[in-house]
Amino acid sequence: MLLLSGYLGLTAQKKPVIAPNKQAVLSSIQTHEKELVNLSDQVWSFAEIAMKEHKSAKVLSDYAEQQGFRVQRNVAEIPTAFIAEYGSGKPIIGILGEFDALPGLSQKAQTSKDPLNAGAAGHGCGHNMFGAASLGAAVAIKELIASGKLKGTIRFYGTPAEEDLGGKVYMARAGVFNDLDICLDWHPSYENLANMQSSQAVVDYTVSFKGKSAHAAADPWNGKSALDAAELFSIGMNFLREHIKPSVRIHYVYKDGGNIPNVIPDKASVWIWIRDSKRSGVSVVEERMKQIAKGAAMMAGVEVDMHLNNGLYELLVNETGAKTLHANMELVGPITYTKEELAFADTIMKAYGGESYGIDGSIKPIEVTRPDPDGGSTDVGDVSFIVPEITLNAVTAPYKSPWHSWVVVACGGMSIGHKGMLFAAKSLSTTMVDLFENEKLRQDIRKEFEQRKGKEVWKAMLPEGKPPVPKE
Amino acid sequence: MLLLSGYLGLTAQKKPVIAPNKQAVLSSIQTHEKELVNLSDQVWSFAEIAMKEHKSAKVLSDYAEQQGFRVQRNVAEIPTAFIAEYGSGKPIIGILGEFDALPGLSQKAQTSKDPLNAGAAGHGCGHNMFGAASLGAAVAIKELIASGKLKGTIRFYGTPAEEDLGGKVYMARAGVFNDLDICLDWHPSYENLANMQSSQAVVDYTVSFKGKSAHAAADPWNGKSALDAAELFSIGMNFLREHIKPSVRIHYVYKDGGNIPNVIPDKASVWIWIRDSKRSGVSVVEERMKQIAKGAAMMAGVEVDMHLNNGLYELLVNETGAKTLHANMELVGPITYTKEELAFADTIMKAYGGESYGIDGSIKPIEVTRPDPDGGSTDVGDVSFIVPEITLNAVTAPYKSPWHSWVVVACGGMSIGHKGMLFAAKSLSTTMVDLFENEKLRQDIRKEFEQRKGKEVWKAMLPEGKPPVPKE
Amino acid sequence: MLLLSGYLGLTAQKKPVIAPNKQAVLSSIQTHEKELVNLSDQVWSFAEIAMKEHKSAKVLSDYAEQQGFRVQRNVAEIPTAFIAEYGSGKPIIGILGEFDALPGLSQKAQTSKDPLNAGAAGHGCGHNMFGAASLGAAVAIKELIASGKLKGTIRFYGTPAEEDLGGKVYMARAGVFNDLDICLDWHPSYENLANMQSSQAVVDYTVSFKGKSAHAAADPWNGKSALDAAELFSIGMNFLREHIKPSVRIHYVYKDGGNIPNVIPDKASVWIWIRDSKRSGVSVVEERMKQIAKGAAMMAGVEVDMHLNNGLYELLVNETGAKTLHANMELVGPITYTKEELAFADTIMKAYGGESYGIDGSIKPIEVTRPDPDGGSTDVGDVSFIVPEITLNAVTAPYKSPWHSWVVVACGGMSIGHKGMLFAAKSLSTTMVDLFENEKLRQDIRKEFEQRKGKEVWKAMLPEGKPPVPKE
Amino acid sequence: MLLLSGYLGLTAQKKPVIAPNKQAVLSSIQTHEKELVNLSDQVWSFAEIAMKEHKSAKVLSDYAEQQGFRVQRNVAEIPTAFIAEYGSGKPIIGILGEFDALPGLSQKAQTSKDPLNAGAAGHGCGHNMFGAASLGAAVAIKELIASGKLKGTIRFYGTPAEEDLGGKVYMARAGVFNDLDICLDWHPSYENLANMQSSQAVVDYTVSFKGKSAHAAADPWNGKSALDAAELFSIGMNFLREHIKPSVRIHYVYKDGGNIPNVIPDKASVWIWIRDSKRSGVSVVEERMKQIAKGAAMMAGVEVDMHLNNGLYELLVNETGAKTLHANMELVGPITYTKEELAFADTIMKAYGGESYGIDGSIKPIEVTRPDPDGGSTDVGDVSFIVPEITLNAVTAPYKSPWHSWVVVACGGMSIGHKGMLFAAKSLSTTMVDLFENEKLRQDIRKEFEQRKGKEVWKAMLPEGKPPVPKE
Repeated sequence: MLLLSGYLGLTAQKKPVIAPNKQAVLSSIQTHEKELVNLSDQVWSFAEIAMKEHKSAKVLSDYAEQQGFRVQRNVAEIPTAFIAEYGSGKPIIGILGEFDALPGLSQKAQTSKDPLNAGAAGHGCGHNMFGAASLGAAVAIKELIASGKLKGTIRFYGTPAEEDLGGKVYMARAGVFNDLDICLDWHPSYENLANMQSSQAVVDYTVSFKGKSAHAAADPWNGKSALDAAELFSIGMNFLREHIKPSVRIHYVYKDGGNIPNVIPDKASVWIWIRDSKRSGVSVVEERMKQIAKGAAMMAGVEVDMHLNNGLYELLVNETGAKTLHANMELVGPITYTKEELAFADTIMKAYGGESYGIDGSIKPIEVTRPDPDGGSTDVGDVSFIVPEITLNAVTAPYKSPWHSWVVVACGGMSIGHKGMLFAAKSLSTTMVDLFENEKLRQDIRKEFEQRKGKEVWKAMLPEGKPPVPKE
Repeated sequence: MLLLSGYLGLTAQKKPVIAPNKQAVLSSIQTHEKELVNLSDQVWSFAEIAMKEHKSAKVLSDYAEQQGFRVQRNVAEIPTAFIAEYGSGKPIIGILGEFDALPGLSQKAQTSKDPLNAGAAGHGCGHNMFGAASLGAAVAIKELIASGKLKGTIRFYGTPAEEDLGGKVYMARAGVFNDLDICLDWHPSYENLANMQSSQAVVDYTVSFKGKSAHAAADPWNGKSALDAAELFSIGMNFLREHIKPSVRIHYVYKDGGNIPNVIPDKASVWIWIRDSKRSGVSVVEERMKQIAKGAAMMAGVEVDMHLNNGLYELLVNETGAKTLHANMELVGPITYTKEELAFADTIMKAYGGESYGIDGSIKPIEVTRPDPDGGSTDVGDVSFIVPEITLNAVTAPYKSPWHSWVVVACGGMSIGHKGMLFAAKSLSTTMVDLFENEKLRQDIRKEFEQRKGKEVWKAMLPEGKPPVPKE
Repeated sequence: MLLLSGYLGLTAQKKPVIAPNKQAVLSSIQTHEKELVNLSDQVWSFAEIAMKEHKSAKVLSDYAEQQGFRVQRNVAEIPTAFIAEYGSGKPIIGILGEFDALPGLSQKAQTSKDPLNAGAAGHGCGHNMFGAASLGAAVAIKELIASGKLKGTIRFYGTPAEEDLGGKVYMARAGVFNDLDICLDWHPSYENLANMQSSQAVVDYTVSFKGKSAHAAADPWNGKSALDAAELFSIGMNFLREHIKPSVRIHYVYKDGGNIPNVIPDKASVWIWIRDSKRSGVSVVEERMKQIAKGAAMMAGVEVDMHLNNGLYELLVNETGAKTLHANMELVGPITYTKEELAFADTIMKAYGGESYGIDGSIKPIEVTRPDPDGGSTDVGDVSFIVPEITLNAVTAPYKSPWHSWVVVACGGMSIGHKGMLFAAKSLSTTMVDLFENEKLRQDIRKEFEQRKGKEVWKAMLPEGKPPVPKE
Repeated sequence: MLLLSGYLGLTAQKKPVIAPNKQAVLSSIQTHEKELVNLSDQVWSFAEIAMKEHKSAKVLSDYAEQQGFRVQRNVAEIPTAFIAEYGSGKPIIGILGEFDALPGLSQKAQTSKDPLNAGAAGHGCGHNMFGAASLGAAVAIKELIASGKLKGTIRFYGTPAEEDLGGKVYMARAGVFNDLDICLDWHPSYENLANMQSSQAVVDYTVSFKGKSAHAAADPWNGKSALDAAELFSIGMNFLREHIKPSVRIHYVYKDGGNIPNVIPDKASVWIWIRDSKRSGVSVVEERMKQIAKGAAMMAGVEVDMHLNNGLYELLVNETGAKTLHANMELVGPITYTKEELAFADTIMKAYGGESYGIDGSIKPIEVTRPDPDGGSTDVGDVSFIVPEITLNAVTAPYKSPWHSWVVVACGGMSIGHKGMLFAAKSLSTTMVDLFENEKLRQDIRKEFEQRKGKEVWKAMLPEGKPPVPKE
């Protein structure tokens, strides 16, 4: 409470001194408010999953085109990936927009659980707002460039397939982030925060074994069991746990564990993920995993194939960037809610799990970076190894909402979500004004980026070949 | 060749002394030959799998009815199980007829691989002939009872679902074999043989574990992994292998090994079979398995459910019965093949695997019983613990044919199969004449049966409740 | 160096205000310096291991008696445990003195590796200085009580068997710490520090399995393998690692893994330790371990016995106490070394591992408490759950010395060790002056103690019965 | 019954016609009876274990020398191995004599358990009689050669270390059996039998892993656990059990399973034996074991060393030889016992385990060879792959005596043992008369030997270098 009023006081002091360009972007977002809400709501109702976001990508890219952006579609051979650019020359500031949904989470914008379309996908991670807000912020900057008040290039990235398949990693592999000076993104949350928390790096493998069938009762000695190998691999990985750092996580399931008991399985496979707070830490365990897989195959007398499905880097945060963002969040001011919205938050949380913690529109102080992040990974991490990344969290749901649940879907489709989306658009656009105007700031941000990155050389963790675009 | 001509000589000597009733059943089968071939071919073309043999059961039961049998359908709550009976009073002699096919084995009656219906089932175990021959033998006996030349009851059992689900065990549990004096059956083979070889007893379990999900990266310590339990169970079973008798076989697959790596699996299951040359040996290992499953659950802090899918007893052979059968096989004489049939056998075996061993219609001597059978199990085993069972093997395919393959399907649909089927019908019906006529023989057979069974008390190894009849 | 001079400056400022009682204890230690050094050196040369410290306990307890303390020997049925007390009434301030050595570390007080007695024990953890310094501090306080300048009771605890067997836990179980107001201790180190770092809680079990022998080739099915159970237990513990918090450590060895391959082992045992940053965390894993041991026994069909060898609580630190201690350390001032001592430190470290980091006599600022301590455990932890504990680290060896090595032994037997020992005696005695004089301080320390302890109820983690005193 | 009476008839017929040379060897053994009993009793009282049989080897070799044999000592670099030879030229007939005892089995020659020397070794396998009887038979043949009644060479092999270390394999590697025509041996038993039963082939390995220590609580991620590798190896071997033939046996113990839990073990080892009914079958599993050991090392990131301690071939029996032996056993006639001996047998068996089966001195018919022998292995197997081997079993203990027990020790030191020893000497010497006299017989025996050996090429399964002679 004390802290909150302190910040409010700070905001109060700053409000009078809003610079003209910042005033302009705030006005722009107000001007386009209905359009942005409409974009968010359309994407919310489309609720398309990874690499299938055809309608969602279309409404966003079409809008960008209408607003005067140059639009490039089918980026990195992904039909739903696109880039919308305006202006020319340096600096080039990027902003990311996600728009994919989660399977099975369809839900109406109401306080009781009820799917919009039974069995369909839903925006349980709020990406409908993500794309719209980022695009709104880009449009506001574009108008300043168009009017000659800012110089350089604004580039909006329509980035599909965050929830699965790692869309941005394919885009990064194609080099589309290489010439950026700085990049921004945000994520729906239950706290307003200039993010200083990294995410987990991860690799995702399918380890498959190939042996030789035999009748399990008549001549099991003529078989080489791929299932034995899969189990020995798993056992080996569990023994490895003693020798991994506390920040590492290893988890797996059996994708193929044999067909029928009376046949020695000639095929078996384990789907395994390895995470750590840093890519470098993941690599250490990844190498051990490969040896364990080879050892298991050798033990069972079978062949092994280790297929890298994909991998994500941890998020490199940037304190200089976060502080700039934080100041602009203060400038924008906290989100306030109506009685109806507060009641909605209360009701929906009680409907979900019995307990409500309200909804908190205040602006949180920047957190100390914890060395070991919670169990989340994001493909923004890969972008953050190519270009300095500034990440905003903006409130679109009640405090302590269960993420990836119907609660988040419901709130993302009504005014609570809309407010968070507009707060994000404003915070990001005012921050971009600073970034365009202040070369020293850009240099400081990049300097910190280089220090944090250190000697790590980014390399897309992807299988060779085209992205896994599903066939229609 | 030498052996063959030797037996032919023997047969030549015996032919003059065919008793009148035996002559009658041989004539009957000749009379009904076309009908029996037609029945076999119809069932062959229906090729229906376990508990779905509606058309097959219909043609066989309808034919029995036409021949004057009293027919009871939907025996033991299985729609495709039926009993066809004629006569009254003692002795009651039973004969089994199977008619289910194997999934995926559809094949034309030709020497090159080509499915009749792509993806459909096929008679890779020759049960189309099994049902027809047994019914033909029963009809021949019925005619003798009708004419007053034999006294007692002949009973044909239409026994579905041998390949899967253990149809006869459900019928046995319902008590339908209890009042039989003696039972006969036969099986398609590549050798003509009065069978003295037992089969393996087996139990079939699904061991399922139920734990508690948690995010595998964020708070794996709040999860209880059902997959861990499944793996620990499997490991425990592999350690048990040191302490089982050489005749025991244990084999398993993972039916459910988790969904996605980032969720601690709250469900997992292992499908496991335990076999031994005797039911009593299986029981010992079954008890250990239950302790291992409980121990694994305790280790992982989860719950366990052990579901008995079904279990089969080993086949109790009967030397007295086998010798009677053998004598009648000699009476019937070996199967002879035309040049075309010999060429068909040769061509199809070469098409299958490159090597042909011809086709052998001779009658083999009775084999010494090996203590440990090869890896096969049959639900005839359960019947053999209720009533003395006499089993014939009759040639329906080239020597060393790969069973459960398209080769067996093809031969079962043309003259090679027809000849074996008729040989079986003749051998079984002449044997039944002996059984009806000779009370002392029946007593000797039962005495041996009691000795072999010893103290073992038969109990259906089935889950409680109705048979697993699939919904249409 | 900069830091060092900075602290010297600070010390310079404080020196003028040394209160009379503090001046008295500092003088007392100077007066007894030779005796204390002599005590330390005698115990160093005795180098007796856990519960065998007869000579060491004798010289220390005899000295206390000579100084006028009332001495109670054979405390808690441990022949080498003793309590030396002076004064009467409240407050009662305790101070701990350890004096046991480590097996196999015998070493001369020189810069090259050379055992004093080949194969004998050595003071690789510096406990020879520990006992002498604490006793010196107690004597200094005793003199103030004797002269009426302080009121209350000073009590020195001669605490054997810290390196092994957990001597203090037996003493704590006997209740000898129950009436203390506050307790102090110190530990030799390579940093001068008022300790704010907890230690790991630990439990130490021997898990033994008992099965049934059989000839491993002739009839392995008649055996029940205790070794199988031990291995399944170990496997279960490794699978558990996924589900433990990152702060937990589990480690084990096989104490008995069978005798000869051709006999199914009827006995096998695993020696296992479980650690966590808190006793409460250890308990969670301990319960799981018991289930896993039972599950393993059930799997292998054997019996299990889980013997608790001992267990230690984590150290409850006390910030109020640490700050008081820190202020007195500043009062005493940093340790300064002669050229010869600096050269000794340099030479011995290079002789050990090639690299020297000098020796650092400065006084370090109080550290932030890390949530997860490094891999150390101490039986002082148990005392710290009964009475507020204040712990000093004092330099007795070169910076980054490898603990439990001959380097620490060598330095503990010459002037570097003596200086650290005297620094400890001075810092502890001046701190005790504050504790005797300042009731409010004592109350604040206890209040913090109660908060940190929370609801945890201390209970000795020991097997029932007498301490494991080795037979001579 | 038929077979037995047949043999009885044969015996009845043959007794009158004992040929002169056979009469001579029977007389010789009678003449030397006291000396032979004395040799047996001396070795019994020495009771020296493998490669430490100094006194036993001395009395036997000295006696041979006294009898006129040329004696070579320290054969194959084993101080207690010797060869005693007489005569010259072909044929060369060998006879084996063992004389090593078993640790811990010391026992007086009485019916209640009481060690002669507490903790000392005892002749629980009856090798004291083995050496004496074989030598007695050799002396009898020597006398015939000396008198010109037989031509050729008789060679007695003093073969130490059968119970452990495989003494004969070292001798065989040195080539000392290569020029033999035929070899004989016998073994104390509870049945008189011309042996047609093979033994198990076996390999004995120590699989050692070498990793890297680390503090198990502070930085387990810096360690590479040799114990993990040992456990993974063991797990891999247990998974292999599904895929071995029923005749294979695998058993192991942990020789080194780590020292103390808080140190990641850098060393660990498993002692493992693999057996099968044939060496060729062992080889298959041995190769898999090597892959599993390598795989386990790869999994744990450690090094592996696989040390072959030794290995034994299965015994190649010889039916032609066994029939010759059997005929001579019939000639010698069954062993008869006094009332006192029958009572001794009865009492000692009841004292041991409560049940007595008497003592059976009759001559058993030749058994059908079982494909899978019980769990025994012998280094006579290696000899039997170099030269045709004929093996006698002679009764030296009550029926169903527990071998390797004090019962066998006791009986081997009194008249029951002496009688069996003399029966063996007589049966072996008369058989050797046939072998010397009958070239056709020798050819037939060798022909059968070549057929049974087939393509297997004998190769000593031993580590390189000298035999493991223990240091005194």
